[in-house]
Order: sequence, then structure tokens, then C-alpha cells
Amino acid sequence: MSCLMEFTIRSIGIIESPYDEGDDMPIQPGFSEAIGKVIVDKSYLKGLKHLDGFSHIIILYYFDRAKTVELEVAPYLDADPKGIFAIRYPNRPNKIGLSIVELLKIDQNVLTVKGIDVLNRTPLIDIKPFVPEFDTNKIKKTEIGWLSKKLRNQNGG
Amino acid sequence: MSCLMEFTIRSIGIIESPYDEGDDMPIQPGFSEAIGKVIVDKSYLKGLKHLDGFSHIIILYYFDRAKTVELEVAPYLDADPKGIFAIRYPNRPNKIGLSIVELLKIDQNVLTVKGIDVLNRTPLIDIKPFVPEFDTNKIKKTEIGWLSKKLRNQNGG
Repeated sequence: MSCLMEFTIRSIGIIESPYDEGDDMPIQPGFSEAIGKVIVDKSYLKGLKHLDGFSHIIILYYFDRAKTVELEVAPYLDADPKGIFAIRYPNRPNKIGLSIVELLKIDQNVLTVKGIDVLNRTPLIDIKPFVPEFDTNKIKKTEIGWLSKKLRNQNGG
Repeated sequence: MSCLMEFTIRSIGIIESPYDEGDDMPIQPGFSEAIGKVIVDKSYLKGLKHLDGFSHIIILYYFDRAKTVELEVAPYLDADPKGIFAIRYPNRPNKIGLSIVELLKIDQNVLTVKGIDVLNRTPLIDIKPFVPEFDTNKIKKTEIGWLSKKLRNQNGG
């Protein structure tokens, strides 16, 4: 295979959340009712045009407080180590996180969102509209591997 | 707000698809039945443990053939320019793309996936398990703004 490549990314804003520490933070948007603010740097204001009207957005962010990369690590929901690409843990080779959150309000460069699961002042990398027709409508049935036992009360795959 | 920050990311592999050019490529996984291969560099092999058993994965990748960033641009589905954060177009401030695809098979470091919508040999950035309980189960109703007119035959929001 070809050589691995290096890219530079720059934060485009910051995410404010009620969580200064990870201990009391919900582990995913699915378990969070928390309100947060996605503050986009004003230099990107024009990029937010036409985002009103979308009920949900995908935010990408940088796990700036993640620690050394571990290819196998025990996730939040299990004591046994799992491969890093089979879990959503922050200490990943590229420390990029993703959450699908509800977009409540846009006031200029400040988006109020619901379902936030990131640490306060996490660097924002991207905002994309969540579009079920693009992303998930086609998915009729899912299997969730080792998480089945934790979330569906079944034997994990 | 605080200063913007810069981060370095490195590809962890490559995505092979049937599409060497954008012209005949499906615009999103929702409209793609194409089979692709997600080839993870062997140095990350341990990170793939326990990914078997998941039916769908989220892949993050780098739009390496994207052009100059445009904060407003006409997307694939409309002739009128839209804010870049209201569309899924590649020429974004951080050129990171995301697709939720079906995981058909894992053979060592090679994942066969269905629903691919990226150019052949796109650099891979991350793999995460797709977990409806984390990502989408809570979402009962969506609004998709300007895309309503295109995808739902309604007046756009």
C-alpha cells in the first residue's frame, strides 16, 4: 500500500458544554440531554448560511485532552480491552470525535445544540447537516458486536 | 473566543472504490450500492479487534482531491450557492468527509464495505462503529432545510 500521508487541520471554533471533566459527562449524544454551544469563528460566518432549517447536525471536533494513542483499550462500557476502531474512545490514532446533535437555534455565529457529549471548550473541526436520506435511511437492521450485551441485553456478536 | 488551533493528522490507510473520477460517483452512501475496500495500514491491525460483529461503520477520510476552500458554493443537488456547513461538499475548511457504510467482511487489515461514495484511493483517517443507540435512535423527526425540496418534495425550511 502507499505511504501514509500527513495533513494539517485547523479548528474553526470551539464547543462549550457543561462538562469541564469527563467524569460526569454523558458518553454519547444518545444518552445526553445537555445543552451546549457551538461557537464558530466569525471568519467562517458565511459558511453557516442555509444551515437554519436543519433539525440535526453532525459536529466533528478534536479530542484535545485525549492521551497517548492505545490500539487496544478498555472503553467506558466494558472492562475488557477492545480494538480502538471498535470503540468510540478518544485516545485514537487521529483524535477526531463526532456527534449528531439537535440544532435548537442559530444566533449569528453561535449554534445552540442539544445532546452534547464533549468536554467544555473542545476545538470544533467541522459542521455538516445530518441528512437521513444520505446517512441512515437505508439501514434497516444493525448489529453492534460487543456492545449488544451492554445495550441490547443480547449475546454480543 | 480563543485562538484557533492547528493539529496534525495522519492517514491510517486508504479507501479503494470503483470511482477514479467524481462524475459517475454516487453523492452519498444513501444512494450507493457500490462495494469498496477500506485498507488499514498493518501497523494498526490490533485496533481492528472486536470490529467484527458490527454491521455498519462510520469512516472518516481526507478529501485529498478537494480544491480551494469556498465558504459558499453550489452543491451537487442545487445550482444556488449554499453555506459550506449546510452542505456536504468536499471543499471545506477542514477537508474531512464521513460516510456510514455497511461492513460486509473483515480479512485481516482489509474491510469490504457496501455503500461507498468516495474517490478511489482516498486517504483513511478513522473508523468508528456505528451504534444507533449512541448516534440516531433518539432522533424521531428530522428537518433538512434546503434539501427538503430536493429529497422530500416539500417546500424547503
